[in-house]
This record gives sequence, C-alpha cells and structure tokens, in this order.
Amino acid sequence: MSNPKKAIVLLSGGLDSATTLAVALDKGYECHTLSFDYGQRHRHELAAAARIADDAGTFHHVVTIDLRAAGGSALTGDIAVPKNRGDGPIPVTYVPARNTIFLAHALGWAEVLEIGDIFIGVNAVDYSGYPDCRPEFTAAFETMANLATKAAVEKTLRIRIQTPLIHMSKKEIIQKGISLGVDYGRTHSCYDPLPDGGACGACDSCRLRKKGFADAGIPDPALYAPEKP
Amino acid sequence: MSNPKKAIVLLSGGLDSATTLAVALDKGYECHTLSFDYGQRHRHELAAAARIADDAGTFHHVVTIDLRAAGGSALTGDIAVPKNRGDGPIPVTYVPARNTIFLAHALGWAEVLEIGDIFIGVNAVDYSGYPDCRPEFTAAFETMANLATKAAVEKTLRIRIQTPLIHMSKKEIIQKGISLGVDYGRTHSCYDPLPDGGACGACDSCRLRKKGFADAGIPDPALYAPEKP
Repeated sequence: MSNPKKAIVLLSGGLDSATTLAVALDKGYECHTLSFDYGQRHRHELAAAARIADDAGTFHHVVTIDLRAAGGSALTGDIAVPKNRGDGPIPVTYVPARNTIFLAHALGWAEVLEIGDIFIGVNAVDYSGYPDCRPEFTAAFETMANLATKAAVEKTLRIRIQTPLIHMSKKEIIQKGISLGVDYGRTHSCYDPLPDGGACGACDSCRLRKKGFADAGIPDPALYAPEKP
Repeated sequence: MSNPKKAIVLLSGGLDSATTLAVALDKGYECHTLSFDYGQRHRHELAAAARIADDAGTFHHVVTIDLRAAGGSALTGDIAVPKNRGDGPIPVTYVPARNTIFLAHALGWAEVLEIGDIFIGVNAVDYSGYPDCRPEFTAAFETMANLATKAAVEKTLRIRIQTPLIHMSKKEIIQKGISLGVDYGRTHSCYDPLPDGGACGACDSCRLRKKGFADAGIPDPALYAPEKP
C-alpha cells in the first residue's frame, strides 16, 4: 500500500521547486527529491538541487537522461538563450516535452517507492508560457498515470500530481517560501549563468525572479554579476 | 506544420515492434525509429533494433536513459526472470512506467522533428498483462500529449499514438508481418538471453513468441539454444 506520508518532489534547484519542497515538508510529507541531469547548460542548478536536498534532509536522487540528442531547445543545445525578452510566443528555452518526461520518470520512481504523491513546482501565472506548466496538462498527466501502472491496476496506489504553486504569482511564491524558512540564497534560477555560477540577470528566468523579489519587497540573494576581484 | 508522411516508430528489436515498423512503412510513412538503452539485461535487442532499422533504411536514434536507478524490475535489476510462468498477476518483468517514459521521450522527438504520428507495438491480447499496453492507457497518453507541447498549443502538430497491433493475437501479428515481408530471424524477443544471444525459450516473451509461430503454422527462426560446437 502507498504510504500517505511520503512524497516525491521534482527539484530543479530553482526558486519554484525549492518552495514546492518546503510546502511538501510543511504538509508533513517525508520527501524523496528527484533531479534530472539532462544536459542542461545551466548545470549549476544541479548543485543547487543537491544542497537544497541536503539542507532539507531528503532522500535525493539524480536521474540521467539525454535530452540533447533530440535538440530543439536553447537550454540543451547551441541556440542562444534570449535576453530581456518581452512577452510573446513560447520562447526557445522551451524544452520539448520536458515536464512530460520528468513526470514519466517520477511515475516510475513513485511506483517502485510506493509513493502516490508527486509534487511539481509548475506555475501558470508568472511563467514563460510553457504548455506543460498549465493545470490542464498536469490533470491529464494524472489521469494517464493512473492507467499506466501496475500499482494503479492492482489498486494499491493512486497517483496525485500536486502543484501547490500553480495559481500563485512569483511574489506570492516568494512570500510563501520566506514564511516557510526557504533560504533562496541556496537556489539557482538563471538559464545562462556566468562561468562562476553568477546569474545573468537578463534571461526570462532571472527577470521573473527579480520582478518577484521586487514585488515582494524582499532583497534577492542571487548574485547577478561576477564578484570583481 | 507536421508532415503527414512521417512517423516515429518505437523499435525495441522484438517481434511486435518490427511488425509495427513494417505496418508504418506499408502505410507510406517515412520512419524515424527510436530505441532506448535503459540498462535492460536483454541488450541483444538493441543490436536487433539497429539491424532491423538498417534493413528498412529508417532514421534510427538510440536514447540513453537510466531506468536501473529506480529498480523494481527483473528486466533491469537483480531479480531473476521467471520461466515457464502460467497466467497470473502482472509479473516482475514489468518495468515501472516504461511505456509512459518511452512515449514521453518520443513526444519530445516528435515535436522537434515535427512529426505527429507515433507508432508503438503494444498489444493487449497475447501479452504479459502490463497495464501500459492497454488501449485506455495509450488513449490517455494521446490526450495528455496534445496538452503538453508547444506545437499542440500553437496548433501546428496533432499527436496520434498509433497502435496497429493492439487487438491482434500473436498469431495474427506474425501472419501480418510475414505478409509484409518481415524477416523475424532479425528480431530478438527473449528477456533472458544466453551469453551468445540465443533465446532461453522459457520466459514469457519466448513462450508468447513460440506459441504465436506454432498457432500460425510458421517455423520460428529464433535460435532457442546455443549452437553446440
């Protein structure tokens, strides 16, 4: 039988997933965190995920999958990450089917670990317009997941895709995280970090983060430029 | 826009996927075949997939993903493959969420390649009872997939999960393949092959295959024992 006090939390190492983990812990779940080494150019986020997991004392797992082979994204390929982009169509930082792939792997782990609750920090307010961040997507994934597994057929496990941030603004996410004690200095959001790991300050992810902290009236602990010697 | 004459075909190297590829080619699709190196113990199937793809002149891609880390299956772990198993519950050769994971990766490739049709050789008649081989699963995956991708949101691509074998018996699959010129001597079905690649003859996959050829009255070209010197 599934253990109602355990959850899997997708942890990228960014602001949203760190907050999602804090929410899951606050709800009393024992958490298994799952990060993906998928050939992302912003590899500093994997280190951030490891330190956030360590801080929280979770069971942390890193799954290696190759999303570079298919290509098609600025986050895995040779396409440049756009800077100071305005609103507009879905940007080239979109990774084809990324959340579908991440949730599919999480589903395999969920079944092996006998855990029904999968937390993902998707957000459909202050986001880049990625289709796989919308509630209709996560609801459809949940329906599919409950037809996909042996545990579902044998009725020992009911999969729930939990998206606590889905309707929150970035400001609200940050306020929630601060109230739960999240140290955002441990997170990494930038899509195109400098060689020393500093944030570029101009990609979509940096811009959404900076605006969120500004709106919340809280200083952003991220380093937006390399420290000068 | 999607190209209606192209398809992605999941190709394990076994009897079903080789037949599925033949069906897709017969329908006039230019095929991209996709195989997964997921740490399976029956690695001979990857070689079989490569030769079947080469025979057919497809664009062949191998995606490396790690399904061993999660464990939970005789096909990737240390659990023994059961032999001469009767009917019963879903066996330990079930790999948690395998088809969900495979189709999720295929979806990413579909979007990059601008291909809407994804063929998978699942079969709900002569099969091991895996939940992710049932039509309700593939239908739910298709619904989810059309909410997951940028191309779906922008209405440039409609994903269709095509399962031409879903209602066929193993006998009918073999008869179909023979009529389309499939050389089953190039396929590999065994879950637990001998060191030289010969088939064990006793695992679920071998048993279903042998029965299919027997029912069809066609000799099975698989080698079920190592050749004696």
